[in-house]
Amino acid sequence: VERREFFERAKAIVQKSLKKKDRLIVNAVHTVDDLNKEINQLSERLKDWYGISFPELESLFPDPEKYASIVLALEKNEKEQLLKLTSEEKLNQIFDARKDSLGAEITENDKKPILDLAKSILSTVELRSRVESYLESLCNELCPNVSYLCGPLLTARLLAIAGGLEELAEMPASTIQVLGAEKALFKHIKRGSPPPKHGLLFQHPIISGASKEKRGKIARALSAKIAIAAKADAFTHHFIADKLKADLEKRLSEIK
Amino acid sequence: VERREFFERAKAIVQKSLKKKDRLIVNAVHTVDDLNKEINQLSERLKDWYGISFPELESLFPDPEKYASIVLALEKNEKEQLLKLTSEEKLNQIFDARKDSLGAEITENDKKPILDLAKSILSTVELRSRVESYLESLCNELCPNVSYLCGPLLTARLLAIAGGLEELAEMPASTIQVLGAEKALFKHIKRGSPPPKHGLLFQHPIISGASKEKRGKIARALSAKIAIAAKADAFTHHFIADKLKADLEKRLSEIK
Repeated sequence: VERREFFERAKAIVQKSLKKKDRLIVNAVHTVDDLNKEINQLSERLKDWYGISFPELESLFPDPEKYASIVLALEKNEKEQLLKLTSEEKLNQIFDARKDSLGAEITENDKKPILDLAKSILSTVELRSRVESYLESLCNELCPNVSYLCGPLLTARLLAIAGGLEELAEMPASTIQVLGAEKALFKHIKRGSPPPKHGLLFQHPIISGASKEKRGKIARALSAKIAIAAKADAFTHHFIADKLKADLEKRLSEIK
Repeated sequence: VERREFFERAKAIVQKSLKKKDRLIVNAVHTVDDLNKEINQLSERLKDWYGISFPELESLFPDPEKYASIVLALEKNEKEQLLKLTSEEKLNQIFDARKDSLGAEITENDKKPILDLAKSILSTVELRSRVESYLESLCNELCPNVSYLCGPLLTARLLAIAGGLEELAEMPASTIQVLGAEKALFKHIKRGSPPPKHGLLFQHPIISGASKEKRGKIARALSAKIAIAAKADAFTHHFIADKLKADLEKRLSEIK
């Protein structure tokens, strides 16, 4: 009985140290990344394979999801579905391209595994969007402030690289600013190359959408707000992100 | 009209030069390889993710497909399904491990995306086996002799690296023996390191299953038969692989 009790106590400690929510978020965002990679890779394969029969289609629809949907609707002769997926003008381009196609005719039997692959890509796209919604609800629950400022995907990546919410909350803004740019930072320290202006934060639209000269300043302003938001999420549990965002927008309008 | 006619002729030439069947086979085998990689990668992800709740399960079922099936049956409490997947003894090991598990409890809501991932892995496994069957029928049609000697996967990989059936048929046995070991061969020529004994052919069970000293001799005997088989497939279209295989087996019994 004593052994059992000891075991239960040890178990509780281990479980607590694992920080379940952080791990759920990290696994979900890694899954999104894995699924992304997979969708892109299998879609290249689909373009090669279906390209035996209709090589011209690829340049009309380079997007993986669109390409797979068009292939399926085209092969099933679903004109209504095609018109949902694309414009009438583009549809005529498809039909013109098919008439003059340099592709080879392939049998129904040869098409079957190709269409199976297209279906598999689409269901992977669906899975990815379900995991993304789950990730969003999880981030809103665990860290509503950071999530409000950064969106669920970037929030989850910050948590993954920081090692959890508490770890993120304990970081100064200057560290958050270059999270994910460890290599460039190390090179800066060792060899005196210019310091990185941003790491993961580059994924935020207010940085990736800004001109190159402004990005450093925006990254500094954004990381300052994230540092405050993370502390609120980890310790005070107040929702202050709307005020933080308003401050940030005011600051952004001053950056030239 | 003349332009059209010219175009049609050009099209026929291009289509012929593409060697459709070769391309179908090469795409199918690359798809099998891609799906393999994907199954392994997503399965590592699943083990991490479900491992939050039940970390001990992974070491009981390291195989990706088995692991995903067990997770689904376990979470749906399908005891009959579990008994189809594993022995009663192993099932008791699972239940014992779960009782003392160091995992954290997670909600149904947190489990849903994990189970979705498990289902996606299983349907990818299914897709892979469908593409493999297709590949087998294609190889039996295009090159029944090589396929009889090597099986569909190795045959398709030989075609992929040779660039097609005709190309394979024109290769001497000594080239076939080291197909896929180009790097080692180049090193041998440039720096005098020992020449490779086999490349892709290592995937054949009579080589991978043999002791190290015998592999070179077996690879030589096997590649000689493949060279003859490929010529029969590309040019005479006679089925002679049963005789080739009997000869090969006789030769193998002489190798010490």
